[in-house]
Amino acid sequence: MFQTAELGQKVSKHEYKQKELPLWENLLALQQRLRKEGNFPVIVDFAGVRGAGKGTSVNLFNRWMDARWIVTHAYTEPSDEENERPTFWRFWRHLPPKGQIGLYMSGRYSRPLLDFVFGKSDEVDFMHSLDRINNFEKDLADDGALVLKFWMHISRDVQKSRLESLENDPLRSWRMLPEDWEHWKLYDKFIEAAERIISYTNTGHAPWEIIEGEDLNYRSLKVGEIFQHTLERHLMSEQYRQKYLGEMRKQFTDREVESEEETGNDIKTKTIMDGLDLSLKLDKKKYRKELAVYQARLAGLQQLAARRKVSTTLVFEGPDASGKGGAIRQITGALDARFYKVYPFSAPTDIENAHHYLWRFWNCVPRAGKMTIYDRSWYGRVLVERIERFAGDDEWRRAFGEINDFEDQLIEHGIILLKFWMHISKAEQLRRFKAREETPHKRWKLSDEDWRNRERWDEYALAAHDMIQQTSVRKSPWVLVENENKPYGRIKVLKAVCDAMENALAE
Amino acid sequence: MFQTAELGQKVSKHEYKQKELPLWENLLALQQRLRKEGNFPVIVDFAGVRGAGKGTSVNLFNRWMDARWIVTHAYTEPSDEENERPTFWRFWRHLPPKGQIGLYMSGRYSRPLLDFVFGKSDEVDFMHSLDRINNFEKDLADDGALVLKFWMHISRDVQKSRLESLENDPLRSWRMLPEDWEHWKLYDKFIEAAERIISYTNTGHAPWEIIEGEDLNYRSLKVGEIFQHTLERHLMSEQYRQKYLGEMRKQFTDREVESEEETGNDIKTKTIMDGLDLSLKLDKKKYRKELAVYQARLAGLQQLAARRKVSTTLVFEGPDASGKGGAIRQITGALDARFYKVYPFSAPTDIENAHHYLWRFWNCVPRAGKMTIYDRSWYGRVLVERIERFAGDDEWRRAFGEINDFEDQLIEHGIILLKFWMHISKAEQLRRFKAREETPHKRWKLSDEDWRNRERWDEYALAAHDMIQQTSVRKSPWVLVENENKPYGRIKVLKAVCDAMENALAE
Repeated sequence: MFQTAELGQKVSKHEYKQKELPLWENLLALQQRLRKEGNFPVIVDFAGVRGAGKGTSVNLFNRWMDARWIVTHAYTEPSDEENERPTFWRFWRHLPPKGQIGLYMSGRYSRPLLDFVFGKSDEVDFMHSLDRINNFEKDLADDGALVLKFWMHISRDVQKSRLESLENDPLRSWRMLPEDWEHWKLYDKFIEAAERIISYTNTGHAPWEIIEGEDLNYRSLKVGEIFQHTLERHLMSEQYRQKYLGEMRKQFTDREVESEEETGNDIKTKTIMDGLDLSLKLDKKKYRKELAVYQARLAGLQQLAARRKVSTTLVFEGPDASGKGGAIRQITGALDARFYKVYPFSAPTDIENAHHYLWRFWNCVPRAGKMTIYDRSWYGRVLVERIERFAGDDEWRRAFGEINDFEDQLIEHGIILLKFWMHISKAEQLRRFKAREETPHKRWKLSDEDWRNRERWDEYALAAHDMIQQTSVRKSPWVLVENENKPYGRIKVLKAVCDAMENALAE
Repeated sequence: MFQTAELGQKVSKHEYKQKELPLWENLLALQQRLRKEGNFPVIVDFAGVRGAGKGTSVNLFNRWMDARWIVTHAYTEPSDEENERPTFWRFWRHLPPKGQIGLYMSGRYSRPLLDFVFGKSDEVDFMHSLDRINNFEKDLADDGALVLKFWMHISRDVQKSRLESLENDPLRSWRMLPEDWEHWKLYDKFIEAAERIISYTNTGHAPWEIIEGEDLNYRSLKVGEIFQHTLERHLMSEQYRQKYLGEMRKQFTDREVESEEETGNDIKTKTIMDGLDLSLKLDKKKYRKELAVYQARLAGLQQLAARRKVSTTLVFEGPDASGKGGAIRQITGALDARFYKVYPFSAPTDIENAHHYLWRFWNCVPRAGKMTIYDRSWYGRVLVERIERFAGDDEWRRAFGEINDFEDQLIEHGIILLKFWMHISKAEQLRRFKAREETPHKRWKLSDEDWRNRERWDEYALAAHDMIQQTSVRKSPWVLVENENKPYGRIKVLKAVCDAMENALAE
């Protein structure tokens, strides 16, 4: 694989000067187009052998283009903040918005490579980390992102002479790292692992380009040229993809209106919510007593969790007026304000819309020991976005897999994850809406949107059924809460939270 | 995950009769459309719990549609023929052509599930087999295929009563399998493994549908309806995708002609072939001597390989007149005709074109102990198909990963894989062309296409360089052969084959 990058490629000073200027102009123009027409982010990774030109390439990109629309990240050891979250948190939060460029050095490929070479990870961990990377890149590419990866290569001998000249140069010797010679001795192991990484993660949507890094002029022009052609191609193909997605979605919506009679022939299927016993009740006296018991228990558990640095994440979904807010308040009522955060989610903001839909949720993954409560969540993708057609058919369908992968990362990191579906009958919703209308201090809670959503009750029920089917897994099941009677529902939620935390903390 | 399929869904006989007929008519009409407009194959898998209706569903599909355009495969233990090839051979060869439907029972998911439940595979094997499945499905879906998977579910108790009634029915008890009760006892383990499989392989392009299998009427209509809607949707979206791919490719080709000057600015890069020393020679006398030695060695090795059931696969690529045929004849000249097969590949036939491009190569994967020689191969995807634009940019780029995965399966199965790039200079090609023109019995070997390819010499060289970079991996490197002097080249090939076989057989 790497013998193709040990050919002694060279570009003379004269040729470099001739070719750099037109390249520079092209790149600037392309960046402008990206900012204006490009409805996608650009993600460029620089990996490879030490001394093969990762850093100088990143610097050149920043010189050739307007650095205001470029973010650059060079990763070293994770910070405390980062260690307290799943591995990919740092990569998610540094993603550029649409129209901008992100350059990454020693990024997501660095840790798997080093850990494998130094025997800190076994075959299973190694492949698992590559699977995670493949999923990450696929999520982004499916969303339209341009993902490009450069492997900067020099041979073992060239690296040796690079290190020697660095060591012997008084002005540059400070750049030697203590581990440099140690790594060089492992050159062959590095290259063997790199070959496996590149083979396994070289996909059509996130390709690797191997660059011979010995000659500064050659490698600089080469990465510039490849970037230029790739961006040009992506700008063009994205334009077609957007057009086609737009046309297709329109067609689907039109057809659906037409063919309502056709699908009207479909059999009526029960949803999993139909099986819930909404007559379950708890009288006030018993409720107060149990509330006090569970809140005390929860308070103690959260203190223990904070000491043990175990985080808890609670997700609440359910129809309007199903009592999500009330259930959340019973939980937070028991807790010290330092211990928890509640994130209510509604329509995304501009900057959120300029990112992958999971980005805003990754951004509020908590530090260790905290409780995080989501009042509506990433499940909006397969509920409101599906029903309102903000997400195309292809988008919400693949979201099940994306969400399972996201949650799997939370759980793998040791976070306790619970998902609550708060359920009420359609009649009860109407009663609650009316009560809101009649109570001055609650009127603000009711909007036209609530009434519109109500008309689509059955569609939402089917979407929720599909969601539960596809995302209720052993490690993080959905808890279905009969909340027709609020006292009953709230205690069921509290009990589930306490049980899950107790279980996890007992381990 | 499966609690959504234990709700007691039922459809009355009356409702069934009402709904079956329109469904039936729709399915027949859709199959017609698929045959006429549908430029893709349909691949439907039925997996799940015994007794949940896999078999009856397959029968219904065959009743509802014209069975002439449906292929059905129920997999049991692999045959000798199948065991002698990589696991996925049986799935590749049973793929339907475009416009047709393949129905599969106990297919690719069966073995990983059973092996894991019975402890015959560990975590690594299990995940590895799921990765292979994901790659397989992605390859097909990228090519346009509709891939749909049904998981037929019944609860533990329902399965128990199913088995009891089967056992006690004198007319049906012959259908009981010896392992049925043993499997039933492992029900919970099955379900746990199934949940992992479904989560991990539930992608947007190859989704799982979980069906409650207790009531015959319900499950029959349900699978029919889901199939109907999925096929309808796919017919529509494929039409858009084809249109968009067509438009985009046209645009790319047009632009490329325009922008030749622009990319004319690109730096000239050496290819890996430029480094070959084409002056290497072997004189006739020495050649004859070595030929005799290596042919004898090869003959012995192939007899040993045949006894040991070790297969060898040789791939030959290179420019026209680079001496692929001659090198192949030196090899086969040493062998018993029962031991080898030579497959010369040129443009695909109609039926080959109606399948994924790898299909025709999977079809000639050899049985154990044979030598198989490909005169041109799957690498056509990234050579001639790239240059002549038979494959779009997206298609040949993702082919590197697809090819690496394919070859990895051959190697994992124990097949010795060697890839030869036969190289000559452009001047030597001209000499050989002219010699062919002048020799009556060789004139047929030269076509207009050869002259046309010659004009694109540089493009082919760059494509070959990329190919070698992306697919020359430690386990199966490319051997570059300096064949300007045929005796030298032929001996280099023979020696490489002998060495590789000797190495592998010594293990």
